[in-house]
Amino acid sequence: MRRGIERLRGFREIYPEDQRVRRRLFQAFVEVAQSFGFEEVEAPSVEPLELFRLKSGEEILAQTWSFRDKGGREVTLVPELTPSIARMVARRRDLPRPLKWFSIAKMWRYEEPQAGRLREFWQFNADIFGSPYPEADAEVIALSCAYLDRVGLRSQYEVRVSDRYSMEAILGPRAGEIFPIIDRMPKVGEGETRAALSALGLSDSEAERVLEIASVRGRWEEVRSTVKRLGAPDYRLRVLDELFLVLDSYGLGDRVIVDLSTVRGLAYYTGIVYEGRDRAGRHRAIFGGGRYDGVVSLLGGRETPATGMGMGDAVLELMLREAGLWGLEAPRADAVVMWIGGDRELSLAARAAAALREAGLRVDLEVMRRRPSRVLSRASREGVRLAVIVGEEEASVGEVSLKDLESGRQVRVPVGELPSAARALLGG
Amino acid sequence: MRRGIERLRGFREIYPEDQRVRRRLFQAFVEVAQSFGFEEVEAPSVEPLELFRLKSGEEILAQTWSFRDKGGREVTLVPELTPSIARMVARRRDLPRPLKWFSIAKMWRYEEPQAGRLREFWQFNADIFGSPYPEADAEVIALSCAYLDRVGLRSQYEVRVSDRYSMEAILGPRAGEIFPIIDRMPKVGEGETRAALSALGLSDSEAERVLEIASVRGRWEEVRSTVKRLGAPDYRLRVLDELFLVLDSYGLGDRVIVDLSTVRGLAYYTGIVYEGRDRAGRHRAIFGGGRYDGVVSLLGGRETPATGMGMGDAVLELMLREAGLWGLEAPRADAVVMWIGGDRELSLAARAAAALREAGLRVDLEVMRRRPSRVLSRASREGVRLAVIVGEEEASVGEVSLKDLESGRQVRVPVGELPSAARALLGG
Repeated sequence: MRRGIERLRGFREIYPEDQRVRRRLFQAFVEVAQSFGFEEVEAPSVEPLELFRLKSGEEILAQTWSFRDKGGREVTLVPELTPSIARMVARRRDLPRPLKWFSIAKMWRYEEPQAGRLREFWQFNADIFGSPYPEADAEVIALSCAYLDRVGLRSQYEVRVSDRYSMEAILGPRAGEIFPIIDRMPKVGEGETRAALSALGLSDSEAERVLEIASVRGRWEEVRSTVKRLGAPDYRLRVLDELFLVLDSYGLGDRVIVDLSTVRGLAYYTGIVYEGRDRAGRHRAIFGGGRYDGVVSLLGGRETPATGMGMGDAVLELMLREAGLWGLEAPRADAVVMWIGGDRELSLAARAAAALREAGLRVDLEVMRRRPSRVLSRASREGVRLAVIVGEEEASVGEVSLKDLESGRQVRVPVGELPSAARALLGG
Repeated sequence: MRRGIERLRGFREIYPEDQRVRRRLFQAFVEVAQSFGFEEVEAPSVEPLELFRLKSGEEILAQTWSFRDKGGREVTLVPELTPSIARMVARRRDLPRPLKWFSIAKMWRYEEPQAGRLREFWQFNADIFGSPYPEADAEVIALSCAYLDRVGLRSQYEVRVSDRYSMEAILGPRAGEIFPIIDRMPKVGEGETRAALSALGLSDSEAERVLEIASVRGRWEEVRSTVKRLGAPDYRLRVLDELFLVLDSYGLGDRVIVDLSTVRGLAYYTGIVYEGRDRAGRHRAIFGGGRYDGVVSLLGGRETPATGMGMGDAVLELMLREAGLWGLEAPRADAVVMWIGGDRELSLAARAAAALREAGLRVDLEVMRRRPSRVLSRASREGVRLAVIVGEEEASVGEVSLKDLESGRQVRVPVGELPSAARALLGG
């Protein structure tokens, strides 16, 4: 490899063996989102940096791939999708609410690459705009769970829910400064967290209380009285009651818990916030989200309640690999078509390939002019089921040989009858 | 809208009414490529600028969105996919040839936006690595045609084929400098082309001859003798014979012609080159491609013959809109589920939604707490077929009301029987 042209650190080249799994994962997200009545949208991958200065918070800004374009404007590769999507909502006051939108898009963050964290990654997003009610948050959480269940991770994850309004009431006026410290606790540990709280001016006993609050964790019916005693307002308890009522009705009671420390890093969240986590606790969040009722109006739209989540592909892949669910053994093609001879045979082989493709089969026409024995042995090894061979003898009467590579059975048919003969072999 | 946060010029925000058409177009490309035995790969969206300095040519380089990353390295948003894909081939000598790869990826070019040309666009790519034979080029052309046919453009386009080796023999040692001038002719006109040829040092009669050569155009059997007389070598005539033999066998004889002026702008092409164009001649190329036998070895791989094409989404969209094929009227959901009352009704509504989704329906749970009459009238207007209503009376006995919005028929069923009742209504 010539120096200077290798791919950048934290970027991936994805070969077919992995991409076929990823294509299936993307398609599954489309189907699950549609089953929840969500519609797909797409936003730009490059945006004015200003868009992320508004509300995303310092951590995201420090991680952007930002630069000046040729017109001298400060732009950035998008580190997250929420501001762009919220701007799309702001612009279209004509669309009837609620808007239930999903998208699948690449994002970029200038972070140090490590397990589950890349500089370029894909993210699934799902958002509901227009509803202030907890059943909207429940829908987004349920969609996320339905997706993880669908791809086979049902017993591997849990969702941890917190509520920023309750936490603000509990923690008092410094809550906004304390949230980022709590958010970083799983990464930095208890010692550094105490130091950060102390640096904020909290006494040892105040810091101790923050840690105690952050340790509240369990099923809603188990921790409700604790959350109430700590000082959450009654109307937030009612919101959480309704949220868990819907989640329980969806059969998600075993997978969604309260965890007051799950406050999320982004600055724009309001109210309910949540993260999907692997139960074993080895990885970063699988998905994260929550309410951001202030963002659409900040971008020039009407006051619009909003709730949504983002799920990256990197942690998802790690978990699927650990669960032995990554491989997807499927042959590349249903049939290979090869020929021996000259123009007449090549022409007939092309017609045979076209006929099988029209019948819905995935067909590999031999383009290497290799000996049929070599083509056949590679096809067998790869699990390709059918082979079509066009030799001089067959071509002279407009026929082709069709071979079932599994049973070894072989027939000769006119090219017009090839699709039905192939179907008969595949069906039997 | 606040100033400074609008989307950048030449970038798109895509709303559901368009995205649902695009999702179908993307999925169709996956299916057609797979029917030709191609497998999907993915490459980075940001690359070292150096990668495109090697062989893409000055025009592409001038159009890159390049910048220095935070480590001081010159990088760029990818303007095309071929160099990255070729590097992926170079790296993996272990993979058995031929490699038949496709991908669907975003690209960026810093050009002046206009109809069919955006600064951010999607491109479908399909390439075959390892075969020097014209049937490989034919496969890529046939795949492109199969795709355009599949999306409904069968009678709207033609493919124009040329051959760089023939053109080099015909034009002589200055061919490499003449190609970019011929390539720009459709954009700039004949006058400017003559001027450019003259600036290159060609006499008026030499320039006249170039224009005459560039005007050769027709079915291969019609123009073959002209191409031979102009000076194309016999072995290239034979390559073109075989190419058109396969294309004719695929039934593409009416859509693929020779057009010697179609030399393509990129510097790395060798041998056969082609473009898909709208027959009316209104737009830029729908797709373009050709052989680039030198690129993989330039990137450190073995000598690897290669041929491939790229198709952008912008011209495709223009043509589909003109042909009246862009709209896709499909209701957002199969059923809406609403409730009136309290916790009991909400819980039952969530269970009803979950049951219908598990049965494969796309279900919209009402999250706005609107009056049922409003929800029903919007659902009817949008073509949603079924409505589930959970009121106090129903909920008290664990039942829900199911209404067919088309016929007006309404039944009451226990929530467990809802999926089969819904199927019965949809089936009838």
